[in-house]
Amino acid sequence: MKIVYFGSLKTKFIKTGIERYVKWLKPYERLSLLELKSGGDVNREQVENIQKKERELLFKSLKSETLIVLDEAGDDMTSVEFASFIEKSRINSKELLFAIGGYTGFHTDVKKKAVKTISLSKMTFTHEMALLLLIEQIYRSMKILNGEKYHY
Amino acid sequence: MKIVYFGSLKTKFIKTGIERYVKWLKPYERLSLLELKSGGDVNREQVENIQKKERELLFKSLKSETLIVLDEAGDDMTSVEFASFIEKSRINSKELLFAIGGYTGFHTDVKKKAVKTISLSKMTFTHEMALLLLIEQIYRSMKILNGEKYHY
Repeated sequence: MKIVYFGSLKTKFIKTGIERYVKWLKPYERLSLLELKSGGDVNREQVENIQKKERELLFKSLKSETLIVLDEAGDDMTSVEFASFIEKSRINSKELLFAIGGYTGFHTDVKKKAVKTISLSKMTFTHEMALLLLIEQIYRSMKILNGEKYHY
Repeated sequence: MKIVYFGSLKTKFIKTGIERYVKWLKPYERLSLLELKSGGDVNREQVENIQKKERELLFKSLKSETLIVLDEAGDDMTSVEFASFIEKSRINSKELLFAIGGYTGFHTDVKKKAVKTISLSKMTFTHEMALLLLIEQIYRSMKILNGEKYHY
């Protein structure tokens, strides 16, 4: 499994949290994170330009993986539904690649290429917080799929 | 504004994150956190017993505040909707009290007493993560209501 995100991880507590989940995930799943350069600053550049840059970067990093895009307007799922989505996707034995956009969101081309667009929440979170939430839900999925208890 | 939650904050990175937002919120809003003892262990006790205990504890801590309950089955809102909900609620000049349940969720009495039930996500998060998300959204609301930029 891979997660690709745009913009750097600046917030220390989130970094610590992410490292923690990556470590916990090890017995279940090999997860790699790929940080891509943000498409630019929205004050100086047009949203579309930023989205195009991020589209190019993402498509370059995409090989044979199944692309899943995180987007506020995507499908909302319960944790159990998310776990069973992961389980089904794994049957194809293709690697999953989750992509988290920058603050402009993804270009429509990216959403079109995605097998699935998932919404973690209707609320807006920073890309850093979205990454933390996603990785926590992946960990929760592994616990659900293995029938293990997890509630802290 | 107050946030009441059940069960302790065990995870250090979440604690750090919460402290960070509380500090950032200071210029905008006085926010106090109240930790209540969890109603019990779901392996040993019935869900209803736990919910009843947490109901008693919550109602005891509730004075004249407007109760808002966080619940997966609650209303989902965008961040802008959440901000305008906070703004409207403040016009009544009553203090807002947000309540986050333990892993059994709240007793129906609690939901009935609430002025509003809000869902942060259809996905399940730990009470710790829910607290972090809520406080981040409160901070985001303050930035939105003050027309300030915030995207990290």
